[in-house]
Amino acid sequence: MKKHLLIFTLTGILFFSLIESSSAATTISEEGQYIFNTLAFYIGGVLVALMAAGFCMLESGLVTTKSVSTIAAKNVGKFAIASLVFFFWGYNLAYGIPEGGYIGKFLIWSEASKISTGYSDSSDWFFQAMFVCATVSIVSGAVAERIKIWPFFFFAIAMAGFIYPVSMGWQWGKGWLYTSGFSDFAGSTLVHACGGAAALAGVIVLGARNGRFGAKGQKISMEPFAASSIPLVTLGTFLLWFGWFGFNGFSQLAMGTFSDATAITKIAVNTHLAGAAGCVTGAIITRLIGGKTDIIMMLNGALAGLVSITAEPLTPTPLQAIIIGSIGSIIMYYGTKFLESQRLDDVVGAIPVHMFAGIWGTLAVPITNAETLFGTQMMGALSVCVFSFILSYIVFKAMKETIGIRISKQAEKLGTDVSEIGVAAYAIRD
Amino acid sequence: MKKHLLIFTLTGILFFSLIESSSAATTISEEGQYIFNTLAFYIGGVLVALMAAGFCMLESGLVTTKSVSTIAAKNVGKFAIASLVFFFWGYNLAYGIPEGGYIGKFLIWSEASKISTGYSDSSDWFFQAMFVCATVSIVSGAVAERIKIWPFFFFAIAMAGFIYPVSMGWQWGKGWLYTSGFSDFAGSTLVHACGGAAALAGVIVLGARNGRFGAKGQKISMEPFAASSIPLVTLGTFLLWFGWFGFNGFSQLAMGTFSDATAITKIAVNTHLAGAAGCVTGAIITRLIGGKTDIIMMLNGALAGLVSITAEPLTPTPLQAIIIGSIGSIIMYYGTKFLESQRLDDVVGAIPVHMFAGIWGTLAVPITNAETLFGTQMMGALSVCVFSFILSYIVFKAMKETIGIRISKQAEKLGTDVSEIGVAAYAIRD
Amino acid sequence: MKKHLLIFTLTGILFFSLIESSSAATTISEEGQYIFNTLAFYIGGVLVALMAAGFCMLESGLVTTKSVSTIAAKNVGKFAIASLVFFFWGYNLAYGIPEGGYIGKFLIWSEASKISTGYSDSSDWFFQAMFVCATVSIVSGAVAERIKIWPFFFFAIAMAGFIYPVSMGWQWGKGWLYTSGFSDFAGSTLVHACGGAAALAGVIVLGARNGRFGAKGQKISMEPFAASSIPLVTLGTFLLWFGWFGFNGFSQLAMGTFSDATAITKIAVNTHLAGAAGCVTGAIITRLIGGKTDIIMMLNGALAGLVSITAEPLTPTPLQAIIIGSIGSIIMYYGTKFLESQRLDDVVGAIPVHMFAGIWGTLAVPITNAETLFGTQMMGALSVCVFSFILSYIVFKAMKETIGIRISKQAEKLGTDVSEIGVAAYAIRD
Repeated sequence: MKKHLLIFTLTGILFFSLIESSSAATTISEEGQYIFNTLAFYIGGVLVALMAAGFCMLESGLVTTKSVSTIAAKNVGKFAIASLVFFFWGYNLAYGIPEGGYIGKFLIWSEASKISTGYSDSSDWFFQAMFVCATVSIVSGAVAERIKIWPFFFFAIAMAGFIYPVSMGWQWGKGWLYTSGFSDFAGSTLVHACGGAAALAGVIVLGARNGRFGAKGQKISMEPFAASSIPLVTLGTFLLWFGWFGFNGFSQLAMGTFSDATAITKIAVNTHLAGAAGCVTGAIITRLIGGKTDIIMMLNGALAGLVSITAEPLTPTPLQAIIIGSIGSIIMYYGTKFLESQRLDDVVGAIPVHMFAGIWGTLAVPITNAETLFGTQMMGALSVCVFSFILSYIVFKAMKETIGIRISKQAEKLGTDVSEIGVAAYAIRD
Repeated sequence: MKKHLLIFTLTGILFFSLIESSSAATTISEEGQYIFNTLAFYIGGVLVALMAAGFCMLESGLVTTKSVSTIAAKNVGKFAIASLVFFFWGYNLAYGIPEGGYIGKFLIWSEASKISTGYSDSSDWFFQAMFVCATVSIVSGAVAERIKIWPFFFFAIAMAGFIYPVSMGWQWGKGWLYTSGFSDFAGSTLVHACGGAAALAGVIVLGARNGRFGAKGQKISMEPFAASSIPLVTLGTFLLWFGWFGFNGFSQLAMGTFSDATAITKIAVNTHLAGAAGCVTGAIITRLIGGKTDIIMMLNGALAGLVSITAEPLTPTPLQAIIIGSIGSIIMYYGTKFLESQRLDDVVGAIPVHMFAGIWGTLAVPITNAETLFGTQMMGALSVCVFSFILSYIVFKAMKETIGIRISKQAEKLGTDVSEIGVAAYAIRD
Repeated sequence: MKKHLLIFTLTGILFFSLIESSSAATTISEEGQYIFNTLAFYIGGVLVALMAAGFCMLESGLVTTKSVSTIAAKNVGKFAIASLVFFFWGYNLAYGIPEGGYIGKFLIWSEASKISTGYSDSSDWFFQAMFVCATVSIVSGAVAERIKIWPFFFFAIAMAGFIYPVSMGWQWGKGWLYTSGFSDFAGSTLVHACGGAAALAGVIVLGARNGRFGAKGQKISMEPFAASSIPLVTLGTFLLWFGWFGFNGFSQLAMGTFSDATAITKIAVNTHLAGAAGCVTGAIITRLIGGKTDIIMMLNGALAGLVSITAEPLTPTPLQAIIIGSIGSIIMYYGTKFLESQRLDDVVGAIPVHMFAGIWGTLAVPITNAETLFGTQMMGALSVCVFSFILSYIVFKAMKETIGIRISKQAEKLGTDVSEIGVAAYAIRD
């Protein structure tokens, strides 16, 4: 009898063992998941890096021909500076925050991957660093054509080294916003509205370009402010759009399971359709209102659609994504008109695209995500915007009162390319 | 004895169990395959999305300076419109077709992934949607500089919402072409010749740009029709070339096994070499015939090579791929001359590149793929081209007779940028 | 007793079997590794392919407006030619080398993947082919604006078909440099210094552009040599930068284990930070020395930083990577001045960026990699540079004495676009 018992026990263990081994054939090993997750961050990082080129082309095309070398220098410079700053202390300022807290630690980042962490530290840093670069990029276009280049670089240090990592840490570092129940999947508020609010501060402190707004009621010729190259603006928008597949998709932060892989691609579809809806909406509005189909509003419309869906690209149905993106585009359009009426000179439309549509996207989360509350979303968006605006205002103002931030009137006439860079953007003769 | 039997049985089960568990270590789990396949569609989709930017840059560079904003608006607009239409009904029109049938269902697309479907629905939609965008892109360049923008957008709806999904469904939706034994791996016919045939219809209905062809025998100056920017044309071609690695490679539709992963990369090599051969052939032809090494024929030669290998990028040896691509380039060259002799004004050479080389590629499949027949390939290419041409002709003609499709002579003199968009493409002063 | 023994044995086997099956759940199957590795080469190849577009944009932007079509034709042409040559015999010339030997076999490449080789042959060829294209690209910018296009194409054949594969095979084909203990992770010497040395030979044999240098001490106006488009230079640099994530990252040559995936992303971080440091260093140097923040030195500084870290992107800490990149940028800056003082006309700065910074990166390896020796690194860098320089010199000189390599003075005045291509680069009228 005892022997039978033993044999039955053994049979039981065997059966269990068979199930184990067959389950090994239907799930993914820890190492496999580690590689998938790491690869996700890597591909995501490369795609978001493309956005740096996208912003650069967009802004290079939208400024006048005499400020193109400068905007290019600002874009590549802040890509470099923001990455260095984020390495030296920014990353740990954001992610070294205590749970529910307000600020992390000024500590250099270091790699310490283990298989059990689920993905490589480096891949995570790489992905997050590209987000900082995107945030700083939002500012450079708005303040173009009159800011001195080094004060802009100093602002990039403040933005990448304090303003963005602190407020981002409130949520993604599991600080007080996170524990309050705020939700911002890939950064409608944390990246876009944050950057847009900083841009607003810069635009206010700097003032408009000379001659951009005339006396009240006076009709001003926009001819001296004509965009230098529409194809480059379009290329830039396409690059941003593609970058967004990584920006939103890989903010899922994992790819090693059925549900993560499915989520990444569901996000890609919603992101794409929101951008598409924003673009078409921009075309329709301008055709109906002004008679012409304004390419710039189509492009900024697409971007506004993409920004809008960024706070929650996973829970909406594609149809809801289309509606969210479309409304974002409308908000961008009227936001642009509003800023102009306030004589605020945002050269590329960064504030309506990133801040206004970003806030909209954040507030729209509860429509499709039942775990969020409108009030909390409002509080989160406001907190980040106010924080970013006030700190940016202080930084710009402090520089204005000390080293100066605006080029001379004479330099503005010649263009920043002559006064700041010494290299003309174009020498095209046909 | 009975106990011995039991023990032997147990040992047998144990042995089986060990084999099971070791086989678990050499193959990939269902979930692992799901992720690999989904990732393949995702990467493929992003690469094919790049082609939208590629087409935009190519066409922006090839049109004259006064139509660049318009072509940019058309490219980003149709990227958005085609995606929306393909979501609302195009996808199910193609893939909802009964086996061996002619047309699918006008049904909104929806995500319903299960691990057993092998990849996420969203990843599939994303990949396929980028193919629609490519197909519509082929048309926009050919009809540039004289078509009104909104009629073009309406045509984009017809193309993305009916012409392409119906004829594509005949093959990839397992309709009647598929059951007839037709073969078109990644779309030499279904995408390229289909788009090229639609472009041909548009070019015929619209007529040539004013002054493009003189009286018979009269020498016409091409100077007023000079390409606005060769570097952008080159950039566009490079982007299309890279996009093709996704377009052809991930049309393998799976990456989760040894043979699929190997196939994807074999396809990448063949695709690349066919493009390279087409490019070199374009350089040699123009150097030998005209004395100059024509950059545009090198670029269109590369594209013709890529189009040619698209119908069957897997079965050829690399050497065969080189020959197929090279012949495609020659066909493109003489096709371009032929269209000019017929006074058909295809601004960017879309018809010779996509339709002529696409048909060649389709007919060349039986050379390397023993499972196909020349007659069936001919029937497939003709069916799709005739279907696409006739429907496109009807749509263009119907619009011509009602809302009008061509801008006024005065507008054409000023350029579509002034008349349609209201934003000049360039304001470059050096 | 015997039965108890049997049962205990069985239990032991069972236990072993359970461990087996659970280990199957923590490691990756051979097929899974094959797919990951193949995918790594594939993604890497696509990213390095982007560098071809990057070089093309960089060089198109830096040359004068009358040589842009030519440089575009040269870039797309050499992309095609180098790939074909590398297929026909280059690959096996490099990798068919006997261990410790000097030269491989002139044999056509062919695909023969097995699961046991760890990755698909095609993926490896694809990745390596893109490296050849990069190497040849380095030359085209330096010799721009005065070389005839076909002699350049013939040189591309020599470079892609002999100079690069032979010297590269010494190391990556496990030839004599490899067995000597030389170390060059992704090609500071094998790609960059090799290409830079060939460029130097070309620049010497060709001579400077007419009017580029005046009589000794005479002040020369740089105005006729002004860069045609700074935004395209910037776009090109961004594309190169992103391509480098693949260039260095996937030179790990595997992704199927925890340590490989971690290494790839550690490399991406070091590569990015070295580029960032080079860029910022370029900005600071030019601001301090010349008063203006020179965009071209920022961009070439970034590239020099990227080149410097390429020889060893894995063993440095990020801080060391920053220092290595920063020093590379300084070397590039003074190298540029040195070449000018020697009246060597390197149009785009290819020699200081790729050769000087490449040698620096190679010599810096022993600082962070204890398994390497300074003397061996020196020997390796010198061997490759001398080999590449001498052979390139012979090829250029032989062509000069026979078919001629330089366009006529009259043609140079008109520009290579008129004399060689027959297509003006720009027809932009605003």
